[in-house]
Amino acid sequence: MNEHFMKRAIELAYLGSGFINPDPLSGAVLVKDNIVLGESCYRTFGAASAELEVLSYGLCDLSGAELYLNIEPFGNKAKLTELIRVIKDRKIEKIYIGIEDRNPRKEIHFIEELKHLGISCELGILKDECEEMNEIYSHYIVNKTPYVIVKWAMTLDGKLATKTGDSKWISSEESLRFVHHLRQRVSAILVGENTVRKDDPLLTTRLEGVQISNPIRIIISKYGDIPMEAKVLQVDESTKTWIIASELISKEREESICNLGARILKLKEKNGHIDFNKVMDLLGRLGIDSVYIEGGSAVLGSAFESGCVHKVYTAIAPKIVGGNKAVTPVGGNGIERMNDAIVLKRLSYEIVGPDVIIKGYIY
Amino acid sequence: MNEHFMKRAIELAYLGSGFINPDPLSGAVLVKDNIVLGESCYRTFGAASAELEVLSYGLCDLSGAELYLNIEPFGNKAKLTELIRVIKDRKIEKIYIGIEDRNPRKEIHFIEELKHLGISCELGILKDECEEMNEIYSHYIVNKTPYVIVKWAMTLDGKLATKTGDSKWISSEESLRFVHHLRQRVSAILVGENTVRKDDPLLTTRLEGVQISNPIRIIISKYGDIPMEAKVLQVDESTKTWIIASELISKEREESICNLGARILKLKEKNGHIDFNKVMDLLGRLGIDSVYIEGGSAVLGSAFESGCVHKVYTAIAPKIVGGNKAVTPVGGNGIERMNDAIVLKRLSYEIVGPDVIIKGYIY
Ligand SMILES: NC(=O)c1ccc[n+]([C@@H]2O[C@H](COP(=O)([O-])OP(=O)(O)OC[C@H]3O[C@@H](n4cnc5c(N)ncnc54)[C@H](OP(=O)(O)O)[C@@H]3O)[C@@H](O)[C@H]2O)c1
Ligand SMILES: NC(=O)c1ccc[n+]([C@@H]2O[C@H](COP(=O)([O-])OP(=O)(O)OC[C@H]3O[C@@H](n4cnc5c(N)ncnc54)[C@H](OP(=O)(O)O)[C@@H]3O)[C@@H](O)[C@H]2O)c1
Repeated sequence: MNEHFMKRAIELAYLGSGFINPDPLSGAVLVKDNIVLGESCYRTFGAASAELEVLSYGLCDLSGAELYLNIEPFGNKAKLTELIRVIKDRKIEKIYIGIEDRNPRKEIHFIEELKHLGISCELGILKDECEEMNEIYSHYIVNKTPYVIVKWAMTLDGKLATKTGDSKWISSEESLRFVHHLRQRVSAILVGENTVRKDDPLLTTRLEGVQISNPIRIIISKYGDIPMEAKVLQVDESTKTWIIASELISKEREESICNLGARILKLKEKNGHIDFNKVMDLLGRLGIDSVYIEGGSAVLGSAFESGCVHKVYTAIAPKIVGGNKAVTPVGGNGIERMNDAIVLKRLSYEIVGPDVIIKGYIY
Repeated sequence: MNEHFMKRAIELAYLGSGFINPDPLSGAVLVKDNIVLGESCYRTFGAASAELEVLSYGLCDLSGAELYLNIEPFGNKAKLTELIRVIKDRKIEKIYIGIEDRNPRKEIHFIEELKHLGISCELGILKDECEEMNEIYSHYIVNKTPYVIVKWAMTLDGKLATKTGDSKWISSEESLRFVHHLRQRVSAILVGENTVRKDDPLLTTRLEGVQISNPIRIIISKYGDIPMEAKVLQVDESTKTWIIASELISKEREESICNLGARILKLKEKNGHIDFNKVMDLLGRLGIDSVYIEGGSAVLGSAFESGCVHKVYTAIAPKIVGGNKAVTPVGGNGIERMNDAIVLKRLSYEIVGPDVIIKGYIY
């Protein structure tokens, strides 16, 4: 076993980022005598699997070869049966797998099947990296609600924006680039109506040197009170916009928004609010496996209060703006006692340009 | 030259932390043929200098020995002339010095004098560490106003306290220990009246295994509106408390506070506020070389707005409390445009337990 090849499988798998949701990112590396005979990854939803593809390469003798897979192959019975047949026919000796497929409805237990055939399988190579890269898949396949990642950039004195709502720009170029990698990975990006009004963001993915996959832009806005010139409302073939509104939104608003090409999803208000759990249920039903919430303050407050958040990124820029009326990162009601705070787990820290990006999990 | 010995001189110098203000922390290591012949440091204000002490050790032959000093020896003409004589008599060959004494009124330029005598001197060994450890001295000796260090602990969502003002405890045990090292170093610690009311802090230094030097506790409180049972008002021989009040403070308040052993310093109000620059001028005149401001929000806001802050420490704990009415780290008026933010310089980051401590400078 050589971890280097698993690292490479992970790297390959990431090439599918943004194109394979809600399937898992999967990469495959075929190795014999420490020489790579083939590499492949799952690149677009519905394409051939990385495993089958790599095994179809060339006519050379694969007996004794090893296969590195970041995740257990997924798919229906026919597909997996075919894969197992090829593995046996081509005399693969050993398969190294990062993590299991958590699909509770899976039709074949791939690893068990191989064992029955006397083909050795080792699970758990670079487990943590493999878990993280497919945390979206592992969550969605079980729960059918989106995996929710939130992110904000704040100043060192804890402000999301100045007292006038100005947030351009808190974080550095380097941190902004980091954000675009997150956008590329997810199915949807969500912000509040006020963020659209204040910042007029485009919410698309901008990365150099890679093919772009734009997440669906979701704006939460009860009555669709968004300027018709807002960038997010200018929809074209590479971008989609959904507005989550109250059922009480006016017919006129609905019409003018729809005329621009955006879609309106309506939910019942409760105490003048749209319940984030309802939002996530709805998005899950629509096939959205992941939502990346970028703010603002009120929306982040609601997201934490509803308990729907799974993962947090915070970029902290070494700036001081001051002001007790400046915008705080997580608004809403908040809790009363420090002892009742949500304590993030599995923390990591990265210095990105002048900023620090802290990553943590709710669970 | 061996940096190891300069590191040791720095280590020794730190033993004077809290006991030598407003003099510089100074340590001395005497080395011959890579063997340490003597170590010393300046331990209490007015004691013998580290350099003279180390040169008085033993009767062995020091010819060809080297002396490592984190800072150029300071003092009056008589003291330095005596030191130079001893250095010459004992045939010290070379002197390595971290940084110069910035005293604009110094009576002898030590390094020049030695050069005249043909004793070689090298300046700038581990310069950055040596600068930082004596930044208080280097500032105060020139400006005669205190060097101002501010520190706050905040949650990952930028809160100094919850909406009820509860801040116990944001940061970890490890971060709290870090704070006590800062307290030990400075002449005074300053907090706002509301922090005393809300947190009732002791504001003393608690560190294990070292002799403690408590900074003078300074409370900024216009009318002395502090509960008489507040811990900071219980003064004994190891603690001092000064209240910075408006000249309009009532006679009764003044009396009851003074009766508890605290001292009242009065300043003129300006637009209902006490000007932080006035506070710093006054403290400087009273021999306070350094003030460590620990909060709360309003006081930190005033401190930044007055422009008196030099150095910032922020401990960020991976906790979420939420709430648009929670307490923000730097309050006050704040600025309007993100582009006008104070951008900290010379940043460093330290992971302390679960927290990140970010350090930066205003200049
Ligand atoms: N630094 C950063 O990373 C960052 C990122 C984003 C934004 N920002 C800043 O944040 C500020 C905007 O934040 P904000 O708090 O004012 O507004 P926001 O969170 O962007 O939008 C809040 C609005 O969304 C609507 N909404 C509908 N359902 C909601 C629910 N369940 N929970 C919360 N909101 C719901 C509400 O309007 P209706 O009641 O009319 O529906 C509400 O007023 C701007 O200054 C922007 O620059 C900073
Ligand atoms: N997490 C942390 O690191 C940390 C540290 C400290 C405090 N805290 C929290 O912060 C909260 C207290 O902060 P706060 O903002 O309410 O109060 P504060 O800053 O502690 O005290 C403010 C008071 O000080 C007086 N003051 C006098 N001159 C002033 C000036 N030039 N500038 C500002 N204040 C002046 C004012 O009262 P008068 O007008 O009557 O004089 C003012 O109301 C508490 O909840 C506490 O738990 C947290």
